Amino acid sequence: MSKYRIERDCLGEMEIPDNCYYGIQTTRMMGVSGCANLPVSFFPDMHKALAQIKKAAARANNKIGAMNDDIAEAIAQACDEIIEGKFADQFPLDMWQGGGYTCVNMNINEVVGNRANEILTGKKGSDRVHPNTHVNMGQSTNDTIPSATHLGMIARFDELVRELGLLSVSLRAKEREFKDVVKVGRTCLQDALPLTLGQEFGGYASVIERLKGQAVSMRAGCFEIVMGGSAVGTGFSAEPGYMDAFYAEISEQYGQTITPMKDLFDGFQNADFIVEVSGLVKKVAMTLSKISKDLRILGSGPRSGLMEINLPALSPGSSIMPGKINPTVPEIVIQISHQVAGNDVAISMAYDEGELDLNVWDATFYKCLFESFQLVNAELPILRKHCIDGITANKERCEKEANASIALSTVVAAALGYPLGVKVAHYCEKNNLSVKEAVVRMGLMTSKEADKLVNPMLMTNPKAAAQAVAEFKKEKHLI
Amino acid sequence: MSKYRIERDCLGEMEIPDNCYYGIQTTRMMGVSGCANLPVSFFPDMHKALAQIKKAAARANNKIGAMNDDIAEAIAQACDEIIEGKFADQFPLDMWQGGGYTCVNMNINEVVGNRANEILTGKKGSDRVHPNTHVNMGQSTNDTIPSATHLGMIARFDELVRELGLLSVSLRAKEREFKDVVKVGRTCLQDALPLTLGQEFGGYASVIERLKGQAVSMRAGCFEIVMGGSAVGTGFSAEPGYMDAFYAEISEQYGQTITPMKDLFDGFQNADFIVEVSGLVKKVAMTLSKISKDLRILGSGPRSGLMEINLPALSPGSSIMPGKINPTVPEIVIQISHQVAGNDVAISMAYDEGELDLNVWDATFYKCLFESFQLVNAELPILRKHCIDGITANKERCEKEANASIALSTVVAAALGYPLGVKVAHYCEKNNLSVKEAVVRMGLMTSKEADKLVNPMLMTNPKAAAQAVAEFKKEKHLI
Amino acid sequence: MSKYRIERDCLGEMEIPDNCYYGIQTTRMMGVSGCANLPVSFFPDMHKALAQIKKAAARANNKIGAMNDDIAEAIAQACDEIIEGKFADQFPLDMWQGGGYTCVNMNINEVVGNRANEILTGKKGSDRVHPNTHVNMGQSTNDTIPSATHLGMIARFDELVRELGLLSVSLRAKEREFKDVVKVGRTCLQDALPLTLGQEFGGYASVIERLKGQAVSMRAGCFEIVMGGSAVGTGFSAEPGYMDAFYAEISEQYGQTITPMKDLFDGFQNADFIVEVSGLVKKVAMTLSKISKDLRILGSGPRSGLMEINLPALSPGSSIMPGKINPTVPEIVIQISHQVAGNDVAISMAYDEGELDLNVWDATFYKCLFESFQLVNAELPILRKHCIDGITANKERCEKEANASIALSTVVAAALGYPLGVKVAHYCEKNNLSVKEAVVRMGLMTSKEADKLVNPMLMTNPKAAAQAVAEFKKEKHLI
Amino acid sequence: MSKYRIERDCLGEMEIPDNCYYGIQTTRMMGVSGCANLPVSFFPDMHKALAQIKKAAARANNKIGAMNDDIAEAIAQACDEIIEGKFADQFPLDMWQGGGYTCVNMNINEVVGNRANEILTGKKGSDRVHPNTHVNMGQSTNDTIPSATHLGMIARFDELVRELGLLSVSLRAKEREFKDVVKVGRTCLQDALPLTLGQEFGGYASVIERLKGQAVSMRAGCFEIVMGGSAVGTGFSAEPGYMDAFYAEISEQYGQTITPMKDLFDGFQNADFIVEVSGLVKKVAMTLSKISKDLRILGSGPRSGLMEINLPALSPGSSIMPGKINPTVPEIVIQISHQVAGNDVAISMAYDEGELDLNVWDATFYKCLFESFQLVNAELPILRKHCIDGITANKERCEKEANASIALSTVVAAALGYPLGVKVAHYCEKNNLSVKEAVVRMGLMTSKEADKLVNPMLMTNPKAAAQAVAEFKKEKHLI
Repeated sequence: MSKYRIERDCLGEMEIPDNCYYGIQTTRMMGVSGCANLPVSFFPDMHKALAQIKKAAARANNKIGAMNDDIAEAIAQACDEIIEGKFADQFPLDMWQGGGYTCVNMNINEVVGNRANEILTGKKGSDRVHPNTHVNMGQSTNDTIPSATHLGMIARFDELVRELGLLSVSLRAKEREFKDVVKVGRTCLQDALPLTLGQEFGGYASVIERLKGQAVSMRAGCFEIVMGGSAVGTGFSAEPGYMDAFYAEISEQYGQTITPMKDLFDGFQNADFIVEVSGLVKKVAMTLSKISKDLRILGSGPRSGLMEINLPALSPGSSIMPGKINPTVPEIVIQISHQVAGNDVAISMAYDEGELDLNVWDATFYKCLFESFQLVNAELPILRKHCIDGITANKERCEKEANASIALSTVVAAALGYPLGVKVAHYCEKNNLSVKEAVVRMGLMTSKEADKLVNPMLMTNPKAAAQAVAEFKKEKHLI
Repeated sequence: MSKYRIERDCLGEMEIPDNCYYGIQTTRMMGVSGCANLPVSFFPDMHKALAQIKKAAARANNKIGAMNDDIAEAIAQACDEIIEGKFADQFPLDMWQGGGYTCVNMNINEVVGNRANEILTGKKGSDRVHPNTHVNMGQSTNDTIPSATHLGMIARFDELVRELGLLSVSLRAKEREFKDVVKVGRTCLQDALPLTLGQEFGGYASVIERLKGQAVSMRAGCFEIVMGGSAVGTGFSAEPGYMDAFYAEISEQYGQTITPMKDLFDGFQNADFIVEVSGLVKKVAMTLSKISKDLRILGSGPRSGLMEINLPALSPGSSIMPGKINPTVPEIVIQISHQVAGNDVAISMAYDEGELDLNVWDATFYKCLFESFQLVNAELPILRKHCIDGITANKERCEKEANASIALSTVVAAALGYPLGVKVAHYCEKNNLSVKEAVVRMGLMTSKEADKLVNPMLMTNPKAAAQAVAEFKKEKHLI
Repeated sequence: MSKYRIERDCLGEMEIPDNCYYGIQTTRMMGVSGCANLPVSFFPDMHKALAQIKKAAARANNKIGAMNDDIAEAIAQACDEIIEGKFADQFPLDMWQGGGYTCVNMNINEVVGNRANEILTGKKGSDRVHPNTHVNMGQSTNDTIPSATHLGMIARFDELVRELGLLSVSLRAKEREFKDVVKVGRTCLQDALPLTLGQEFGGYASVIERLKGQAVSMRAGCFEIVMGGSAVGTGFSAEPGYMDAFYAEISEQYGQTITPMKDLFDGFQNADFIVEVSGLVKKVAMTLSKISKDLRILGSGPRSGLMEINLPALSPGSSIMPGKINPTVPEIVIQISHQVAGNDVAISMAYDEGELDLNVWDATFYKCLFESFQLVNAELPILRKHCIDGITANKERCEKEANASIALSTVVAAALGYPLGVKVAHYCEKNNLSVKEAVVRMGLMTSKEADKLVNPMLMTNPKAAAQAVAEFKKEKHLI
Repeated sequence: MSKYRIERDCLGEMEIPDNCYYGIQTTRMMGVSGCANLPVSFFPDMHKALAQIKKAAARANNKIGAMNDDIAEAIAQACDEIIEGKFADQFPLDMWQGGGYTCVNMNINEVVGNRANEILTGKKGSDRVHPNTHVNMGQSTNDTIPSATHLGMIARFDELVRELGLLSVSLRAKEREFKDVVKVGRTCLQDALPLTLGQEFGGYASVIERLKGQAVSMRAGCFEIVMGGSAVGTGFSAEPGYMDAFYAEISEQYGQTITPMKDLFDGFQNADFIVEVSGLVKKVAMTLSKISKDLRILGSGPRSGLMEINLPALSPGSSIMPGKINPTVPEIVIQISHQVAGNDVAISMAYDEGELDLNVWDATFYKCLFESFQLVNAELPILRKHCIDGITANKERCEKEANASIALSTVVAAALGYPLGVKVAHYCEKNNLSVKEAVVRMGLMTSKEADKLVNPMLMTNPKAAAQAVAEFKKEKHLI
């Protein structure tokens, strides 16, 4: 058996090592790419989705009589093998490719073609199955690649939805755990009205749940694809009946109704769904970053910071300072937000530069979107398990600081008017007193009244607070 | 009557010119701002929405017995005057302010307060109506400003939806007008399969309609606000019943059900709706940019370009080259996309930097989002009226080029197999022939067959094309 | 005298109100622009620089015999009037224009032409001076606008350099003022080795001085322009000798040697200098933002924060909480950084989309770059005067916290080895002791030794610290 | 021999497989990272530079008497082995790490420590060499990592400079090759004055040379580092003489004078050099993108486009359309520009969020900057060898189109006045004539005069053109 086979395309012929399932066109592009030093298959979703598409197309073509049974089944088997993860090393092309990923489509056409031939004839080549004529039948790179990008996202959305759900469960647990921890609220990084640490974590849970809901809705967009549009959206080259048959097949494979976009020309021209998904992933990354920044601030210390919470210690935080522990997980999350924001800009630029009858910037879309998905989906369980779940509160310190806060003068303003509130605030400042001490010393309240009203926990409950203020005012004949 | 009045706040007192409706706190910030050289009121939406809020709050407080009738009505009247556009010069504060736009809230509190006093007493001051105690009653900057940002967007969404609708009507008209103009499709800026100019414009209409639908859905988010949360989300300081009364009032004023966000702590922490809206406005701007870039390419020439369409001539295109006409409107649109993309980055950064109990980056949100809205809403009718509506097609040229295209060899591939398609393509190239000429000269088709099959218009209709190919194959006993 | 005059261009004729100095081409574009609702002349630099160019061109053409003396001098006089600020209302065109700002060039050609005619003949029109033939002689929009953008930046650079200089002076003053304030250093927002507040402010001054130096260097690039390249870089249409004469004139006008770029084709194709300047302005904005964020953190409180410094109080910080003061100036600065970063993205996109023989995205470049300059140059004195200059230190608190820091255990590690350092850190934590207390209680040092070594101020001076450690080790026979 | 060894740090102890050179701290972080699924060592520069630093520190400490000869030499030998590429699998930590890359520093401390012990004692462990006490002596993560980032860039700059140089050589060759190919210039994608294809390529060469010059200058910044600053810039913990000795050693190792930044506090706080380098790499990426976009437009066709140049065919351009060839290399380059622009945004955000005494966002800086370098340095030779070098011109077509251009009417304007130029342009348009035909038919020039003057090649040479115009005017008594 020869170690090489000869393959031909419109540019000439080439010797291809016979252990390779990919062929001449893949080989050509291997010579002129390699910018990333990472293959497209670094994210496996593209090739799995392409294999699903090739399989559905073969079966559809078979169903309408355009392809023989044995060829269709050999193609389907080859595709199944790829979906299972075989031939992973047969997709060597670098992430950054031009031509709307034509070479990526041809790479899988070649691998499937050679493998199908091997199934049917015992050897590679195109004796029975041709990469263009059969594996690519009725398709074009231009409908295949964007469709695979959509289908490839499904698993990433599933991960995202699941992980957002788990994170919200963890945050809700902390909300309950911290419901009695009253603390200083902060706006503009200045002491503001008190709230509970539970209320803060409830806010975190709430936004995560909203994002989860958005992910669930947006996921549906993955099931609208442009297969059947062929090279420019007209659908030229597909046999009659192909399109219906294809969508029936692919829907069955995914166990989901998958439909063509209503206007395929629009679908070819515009990758706005990618921009939308990237926007959502960016929002998730940035929300996690926001929460992480809060955790860093709340956990700052251990002696000179806010020290309201303790983050789990994962490793020594310095090569030189003994005992230093860093908020490493929040810092991973914050930095990933930078990358995801940057990728969103890249994706937006590629969308903006869509041109004429096909947006061909598939490499930008694939690399940047799937990298962002990878990062966010991977950071979510790390943030949850190695940070959120292990957070403890320094309840006493929180309460002590809350009681010392001048912002408690707001309750004085509520009870006795804004101008008196201002006077109390100034008095506290000048004499380094708490508001409770000040109102008593200024003769505005008795100790007992102050204990009742100048009470941070009371202020986190507006109904109870309003009632207490009203009672006070009534007693004082202020109303 | 004195030309000045004395006002006091917690930092001291000041002489304020008595013709000013704004007061001491506005004046303080005038001295330390001015970066943009443009006031917040350059976009009038913020102050109109604030006036609606102040009016609704006054009436709500009156309804629950916390504010006298005459004060509430004086406040409401002052607010109505602001909504009508009066006092526009009384909002002098620069766009870029810190403190979560506290000064912007105080500016309107002062203007409304002075005006309400004037209504009740004949002179400005706080004899009857105090900016904090009354105009701001039950509110805080922290719930007021984000709520006003939401409500202020409604009119911008309305414009956007209307203009997207009108644009799609224009594009659909062009789709019909150009339905018989067959032309070269282009992917990777290389000749590809033919399609009609109408199909291209139909694609444009389709994406614009999708964006319009998204704008309609997203607009609903403007009606969820955080009023009632007061300073940190707890709602401290509002009287019992205030919240229900407020939402009833504001809903009536807008003729829409307006509701509080479910979790106000979340609402205070996260401005993700702003990011979402900015993402949509960016998508619109970029889609218009994409279409505009296409128009520039399709209209390139007049002698050495694609020359498929003619854009309306708006003005001489050169100070030196006679007769040159530039695609000025598309170029305005393309550049606006740069700005809107940049603003989206700014907004994302401000979201990412949300911190603890309130995202205070209101200036970034307001300036960048409303500038983007302004630009997109203003460019839409310009693009429509001064460009799209006046486009004409060069039908003959389009057809001529379509017939000359080597991409027509795809029909040969469909009829006679991919390898023969490749041979025909090469033959055309080498001998500088059209595909129609080549297939005849190569003896692959008769002239009549070639006329029928190698027909760009046929290829834009996949069903008819498939049928014609099938008939040909049958005649040739290829199937 | 008629109230209108008739003007003609290649698209037809129009009635122009005779009080207008601008003419038909300006009028045409007024009808199809207006997106920003702000004219190009909102930033006056473009028109001033264009007037300088028109004046220099007129004198150059006169010198080489291509223009009569009286016409050249009338043009020069008209230009001087524009430079002085006259006719500001004669530049009504909106910021966002296509055609490489052809209309902006024609606007000034028309204003100068009409004014020059008026000077020579007593009335507007083109009897003696024609906007294209004379005012634009030897020029094209394509060399004029990019050159004006370069020259227009000079004043902005001058402001920037001056303000960076003044800020560094203020920061150096604070460095000296705070040189004895020892405090907790912080990395990853965790307590780290001590340093002085003066050292922190010295770091701020140092980066500002570096940026100033870069601004001084980069300013030189403004003096390389592309005048003489005419429409595509070839220089076609200019009379022999024009180029030398022009550069001599313009250099004299600016009092600086101004030179043509070496390769004008390159100069027309690439606006990389704009990208470079935007990059610098972004770095300045972000550095100021970084410093402002530090000031917010260091000044957080007033009761529950770091409270190391006090920022000047500019206005009440809440419409509801008495006594709250916000770091408004730092917050203005932080938000401006968002906008400048966004503008940098916009400018980069416009650069990336440069196309063929001229980058025509002048509106993006001008609006975004000059807005960024405006914001940064305006915020610099505000930050300096209303924030930096008024900062005071809470020396006692800083010292107290520094002494309490567990990071002082690093000195134990230095003196007695890292493992003992770790033990001390743990002991401090467990027993809530300071490092000084711990080492004594653990019997590792005498009280006197601890006083000497476990001394934050000593640790800010590595030489003194190393000597003290060495002496200690020697006494203990550790070396 | 045991398969595990026990290691301890301040958080406890762990079993480490004895074939691992990394130790407990690396192992801890392996459990909580992995977001990118790519290790830091995917870009090898960081670890090579760290090894250089560890080696120089060991020798410096030895020279000043703080480290024994044999330990220092064992460390140096271990470092040399890492520099040679050994132990690549001992740096498993994921790209995205928090804590200012403390774990990355500890990873190499552990690997060097274990290897040095092995050299000295035959087994791993810390019997003789401790990762903190010895390998990290006098250092901190906080001075080590940023310094390694700087030193790690040197090789990337070298590649960049070399490749920009080679590209400019190729472009200059094309400039010469195409110097006689006259063609239509294009501004706003509309026909403009003619120039030569050589002039266009000369413009490309010129900007590439300018960028190369900037890279050469900027490279010098890599040699300013912050070693000696220790944990917060004070330099605490280094022995007397260490800093001088370190810089002498590291300079010798690199064969370059390497110096400390003047103000180490500034150096710790600010990563502005990273922003600067990223800005340059972005400019390079975008300039290559701009050129690539031009090549795509100039090579558009093959039948319906500009077809001025032919790009080398690298692979079939369609899975369905025979004979289609895509501009794949330019499209790779264009997309890489998106990613590099996105990375620049990420880096800018990380700079903006620098905080207090150390900018800890090393992961963002390292991943994004070195990815951008990787992409740009890898695309440069691909663009050169597989695209630029193989470009050929369609000289006849270029000339034909140049002669047909209405923009040649500019020469009429120059010779006979702008108004006549406009008339000729209109006449050409209406009668579908060339300018040469029109001027003759309109009786404005003789055939001979037209041949001489209405000559695109003449118009690319302004001196010759001006002379010819002057002669014509003289003959016609127009001057």
